[in-house]
Amino acid sequence: MNQTTAKLMDGTAVAARLYEQTAIRAAELRETTGVEACLATVLVGDDPSSATYVRMKQNRCRKAGIASRSIVLPASTTTAELVQAIRELSDDPAVHGILVQHPVPAHIDERAAFEAIDPAKDVDGVTMHSFAAMAFGLPGFQSCTPGGIIRLLDEYDVNLAGQHAVVLGRSPILGKPVGMLLLERNATVTYCHSRTKGLPELVAQADVLVAAVGKPDFVQGEWLKPGAVVVDAGYHEGGRGDVDQEAAARVASLLTPVPGGVGPMTIALLLAQTVDAAVALSGPGVRHAAEDTRVQ
Amino acid sequence: MNQTTAKLMDGTAVAARLYEQTAIRAAELRETTGVEACLATVLVGDDPSSATYVRMKQNRCRKAGIASRSIVLPASTTTAELVQAIRELSDDPAVHGILVQHPVPAHIDERAAFEAIDPAKDVDGVTMHSFAAMAFGLPGFQSCTPGGIIRLLDEYDVNLAGQHAVVLGRSPILGKPVGMLLLERNATVTYCHSRTKGLPELVAQADVLVAAVGKPDFVQGEWLKPGAVVVDAGYHEGGRGDVDQEAAARVASLLTPVPGGVGPMTIALLLAQTVDAAVALSGPGVRHAAEDTRVQ
Repeated sequence: MNQTTAKLMDGTAVAARLYEQTAIRAAELRETTGVEACLATVLVGDDPSSATYVRMKQNRCRKAGIASRSIVLPASTTTAELVQAIRELSDDPAVHGILVQHPVPAHIDERAAFEAIDPAKDVDGVTMHSFAAMAFGLPGFQSCTPGGIIRLLDEYDVNLAGQHAVVLGRSPILGKPVGMLLLERNATVTYCHSRTKGLPELVAQADVLVAAVGKPDFVQGEWLKPGAVVVDAGYHEGGRGDVDQEAAARVASLLTPVPGGVGPMTIALLLAQTVDAAVALSGPGVRHAAEDTRVQ
Repeated sequence: MNQTTAKLMDGTAVAARLYEQTAIRAAELRETTGVEACLATVLVGDDPSSATYVRMKQNRCRKAGIASRSIVLPASTTTAELVQAIRELSDDPAVHGILVQHPVPAHIDERAAFEAIDPAKDVDGVTMHSFAAMAFGLPGFQSCTPGGIIRLLDEYDVNLAGQHAVVLGRSPILGKPVGMLLLERNATVTYCHSRTKGLPELVAQADVLVAAVGKPDFVQGEWLKPGAVVVDAGYHEGGRGDVDQEAAARVASLLTPVPGGVGPMTIALLLAQTVDAAVALSGPGVRHAAEDTRVQ
């Protein structure tokens, strides 16, 4: 058993540098074109943690010099009403990015809501267009958690080519896109999920593991290959992740802590992509962040 | 070594039944609505094998009572001209399905051409919309070879849930979508490709192998898990596949032959989806083939 303590991937620090760069780009855009990058958030219903997430995103926008517009709709909103509200934002030239806070109430067709977002404003990377762009290596916005994970791996010089990456989870905004982004980086990619048989043996093959199962402490330390790179995309009460962090720290070479690993990267990428959208929608003259593969 | 001879999956026979069913549905549509299902084929340049493929598809249409329209453009066609021609077909109410014969000449942006296809007429399943629909389990058209593979596996009662499916290849119209369709069927899915390390060991784990690498006899019999289901999506001169067929037949439980396995299913699904599109675009009254998970 390898007793070395894993190096922790400091998402808070990497996100802070990305925020800084984003604020500079937002200011450059304002100075050169007069355009103020603007993120519209759409919140349906009164789930307190969703409201908190939206507030966090708006606060971060303010600090980065990005305008935000807040749309709050009652829990009784219909799919058609929500789609209409999002379409208006898609058509509004003063809005550059649109975030629909997940989850929406159960009676709403979330996919219909997502597809009402103009792909040019899909800074949260939730549309079918954005997913296919990620899968095919085409220009477009990345889903924020998957894109944040890739940036974090880049920051820690993880060379993905030829590595076996195992993704636990297959949601449309996390598991599926992160697997496609890893495949685009030439990793061999295995998707595991609730129906997978022999999960510990598959996890044991992972040079890079991305855990996105939504179950606290699900991944056991003894499942891991010694020296693996472990990305824990979970967040549960009491600061637990999807991985048994204490055990993983004794086996992995690199590990994202919870909190302070993947989480901070998600909002940081949302804001970076909002400025990307504003730049793209406001004409040339400001460098596009997507041209860089890593945070400067 | 298991000396049992693999059962061959007879794509020709399964495709014949699908053609029959498609012809009946095309006739029903014509009788109930007066609408003649119509596939438009777009061929750019003078590659003889591409011309042959297009002719095969048109012949099959005629036999199934599906109208076809043929657009042939010179090799010097620009992307803008091709996009314009495809947009006209997308806007033409008499056309229900559009097939752009792959590959187009190297100077053309094939993705731009594909994206000019209205997703409602993307019966070859090549648009970004269709890919995301396959990945997310949403209504839409399947890429024809991947969709044909799944239908063939269904016909031979292969239960994919919990099985480890290994896909060799990651092209946008074969490897990537077939992996997503297998994942939707609850298989554990591993994508391998030219940069994968330790390929034989990964192939050895496959309960279901899909070979789509484009190299004759690439997959060796000794790599295979005894009893594996082997789908060979390759076709090379002299009737070779991507798998060493003779060796695989001694190890696999089920095997698609070359020719006569995957190949025939591709055009059969193209035609079935053309009638699906015609039905959907012509209003209700005729049953949609996608409602069935298997050929009757």
